[in-house]
Amino acid sequence: MLQGRILVAQGGGPTAVINQSLAGIVLEARKHAAVDTVYGALHGVSGIVDENFLDLGRESAANLEQVAATPCSALGSTRDKPDAAYCAEIFKSLRAHQIQTFFYIGGNDSSDTLRILAEEAKAVGYPLRCVHIPKTIDNDLTVNDHTPGYPSAAKFVASAFAGINLDNRALQGVYVGVIMGRHAGFLTAAAALGRRFDDDGPHLVYLPERTFSTDAFIADVRRVHDRLGRCVVAVSEGIHDADGTLVAATLAKKLETDAHGNVQLSGSGALADLLTDTIKSNTPIKRVRGDTFGYLQRSFMGCVSRVDQAEARAAGENGVRFADSLARDGSVTLHRTGDGADYGIEFKLSPLDDVAGKTQVMADRFIADCATDVTPAFIDYLRPLVGADMPTAHRLEAPRVEKILDR
Amino acid sequence: MLQGRILVAQGGGPTAVINQSLAGIVLEARKHAAVDTVYGALHGVSGIVDENFLDLGRESAANLEQVAATPCSALGSTRDKPDAAYCAEIFKSLRAHQIQTFFYIGGNDSSDTLRILAEEAKAVGYPLRCVHIPKTIDNDLTVNDHTPGYPSAAKFVASAFAGINLDNRALQGVYVGVIMGRHAGFLTAAAALGRRFDDDGPHLVYLPERTFSTDAFIADVRRVHDRLGRCVVAVSEGIHDADGTLVAATLAKKLETDAHGNVQLSGSGALADLLTDTIKSNTPIKRVRGDTFGYLQRSFMGCVSRVDQAEARAAGENGVRFADSLARDGSVTLHRTGDGADYGIEFKLSPLDDVAGKTQVMADRFIADCATDVTPAFIDYLRPLVGADMPTAHRLEAPRVEKILDR
Repeated sequence: MLQGRILVAQGGGPTAVINQSLAGIVLEARKHAAVDTVYGALHGVSGIVDENFLDLGRESAANLEQVAATPCSALGSTRDKPDAAYCAEIFKSLRAHQIQTFFYIGGNDSSDTLRILAEEAKAVGYPLRCVHIPKTIDNDLTVNDHTPGYPSAAKFVASAFAGINLDNRALQGVYVGVIMGRHAGFLTAAAALGRRFDDDGPHLVYLPERTFSTDAFIADVRRVHDRLGRCVVAVSEGIHDADGTLVAATLAKKLETDAHGNVQLSGSGALADLLTDTIKSNTPIKRVRGDTFGYLQRSFMGCVSRVDQAEARAAGENGVRFADSLARDGSVTLHRTGDGADYGIEFKLSPLDDVAGKTQVMADRFIADCATDVTPAFIDYLRPLVGADMPTAHRLEAPRVEKILDR
Repeated sequence: MLQGRILVAQGGGPTAVINQSLAGIVLEARKHAAVDTVYGALHGVSGIVDENFLDLGRESAANLEQVAATPCSALGSTRDKPDAAYCAEIFKSLRAHQIQTFFYIGGNDSSDTLRILAEEAKAVGYPLRCVHIPKTIDNDLTVNDHTPGYPSAAKFVASAFAGINLDNRALQGVYVGVIMGRHAGFLTAAAALGRRFDDDGPHLVYLPERTFSTDAFIADVRRVHDRLGRCVVAVSEGIHDADGTLVAATLAKKLETDAHGNVQLSGSGALADLLTDTIKSNTPIKRVRGDTFGYLQRSFMGCVSRVDQAEARAAGENGVRFADSLARDGSVTLHRTGDGADYGIEFKLSPLDDVAGKTQVMADRFIADCATDVTPAFIDYLRPLVGADMPTAHRLEAPRVEKILDR
């Protein structure tokens, strides 16, 4: 049974709906008579060590709803990865504040942090119930059909490419957009969702699940440009050559690495610039432009999937219910119960070990045989997640006027 | 009186509402009994030369409304700048198709194209009525209070920075976002609109109206970071040193220049990377990230100002009315009739020469004395343009828990 003082924190990269999960946990926990209050740790596990707690039991429901609708971790985040000594400091804090239940909202690394913490708790005999609430725009958590945060980021990327396609159609040339996603191409693949007409871009989609070859890239772009007079390209920041070497790594003098061993790929426009320079140098195409979508993908205010909002909220609520009804640690996981119009999700509490620190990449059935596009199955998978309010692009339908001079 | 076959085209960079002006022209012109039909030239003036016309008189009003709500020039665009020979080809086409009225939707360069065309028409004795309909996300047309296209792009930039501020608050460090705007800082300045709390970013705003100094930049960022533990920076792509040399120009081996003499600054992440490298090399700050907002600013689907939509529509409609009632060439200009709750706009037909090829930059009263921020007067100027539905960021208000261990 859920009781006493419970704790919630947020880890890793923010998403557009991570505060929905926070609100879900706090509001659901308050319904449990045996729960005294909910503490929120600032900046993830680092806030536990530093005793930086907010008493979320005293947060008004009205303001919590406003925060839930605001993107990016309201409690602040961290990329700290605790070792045994760090865990010991955490337990000191938890003991002092009489906390025995911890909800950690995060992705692969945060779930791994929770796994480490749960194991250390057992090892030192601290009675801690650990529940992981999933979030990541990368959509790369195992076990899950998809993860909260991804649908909203996917909607942003799809909306961006729907607009970019129109821009590139108006002023023709080559456009390369670089999308987040270190190992999994789900977010890059979302660029294809806004296509409506046969010649709509992105015309080429490069995913980290397939090997990237510069020669093939040049040939691909030339082929599309020869056919359409233009070419829109979506590229994952995680593209790599046959040896697994990141294309981005060939550029940076010194790549930053975080505590979880992740190479920092975002926050630089170098990869887009390399790819546009490659096209400029190896083809006669004059107008070549590149953008790196960067942090807008996960933080933009005003582009959110309502389905994502509801699921992120429910993930938090279900985490609390599982903690109350099931006497075990775990990770809340999302499982699809139907497709298309029958789309639905059910929540389970999966073993932490099944999710923690693991990475799911795109299934082969989602990637076209040509390796530079997604399949209709992927579009069917993604469409219900972004909600029904995706904007649609329209074209003029007026007939051509017959030429008189016809020079 | 407006009569016969009239022509419309779109020039320069697309905007989110440029098709509203197109729809305004077509639907208003159709109300005039003496107007036979409206032709649309594909890809601006180049489509006139090539006789690439659509018969927009046969476009359904329903589809035209859908197109109006779609960003980016539906007719396609061009950056061609005509000379006398080019104009002669245009007149051949216009004569063959019996067109004597031309509406050109565009910015500084397109209005200059129209001025050239109008002068050539007089010189060669071709009876052409030329009306310029304003659009530009840069907001740098003279005479106008502001230009259609700017409010929607400003809303995008403001929404992006409101989110980026939250992201930077969650995972602290320095963030540099580079915004479009070659000479005028209006769009960069819009980054400040989403600020709500005292410590909200952007904390520094670098405009092309002020001289950029790398030493001052480093000192500014250090000062903010020392105070807040983080720093969000908005930078115009057009920042330059005391000699007027573009900071971006110090980077590129070979800058592209278009027919109008504009240096290509967008489509590369080099400036953001230079600025983040500068901070990394000259301060002890570890987490430094940079994004270049690029083409998303003008094409993103799903972020539009309703005020902008209505004004862009009205600009097209008024252009047709002026062409009907006033027997002269000109540029439709927007004039503010009231501020705040009394906000309103009236349209005038100004001489083409007053607008064509000229550039308006931000008034001194819009730029703070420190040179790295905007004034409240600028916020008052911008707020009514973006509409009432700007998303608002909310923070947790729960009280801090008293520390027990207080290590």
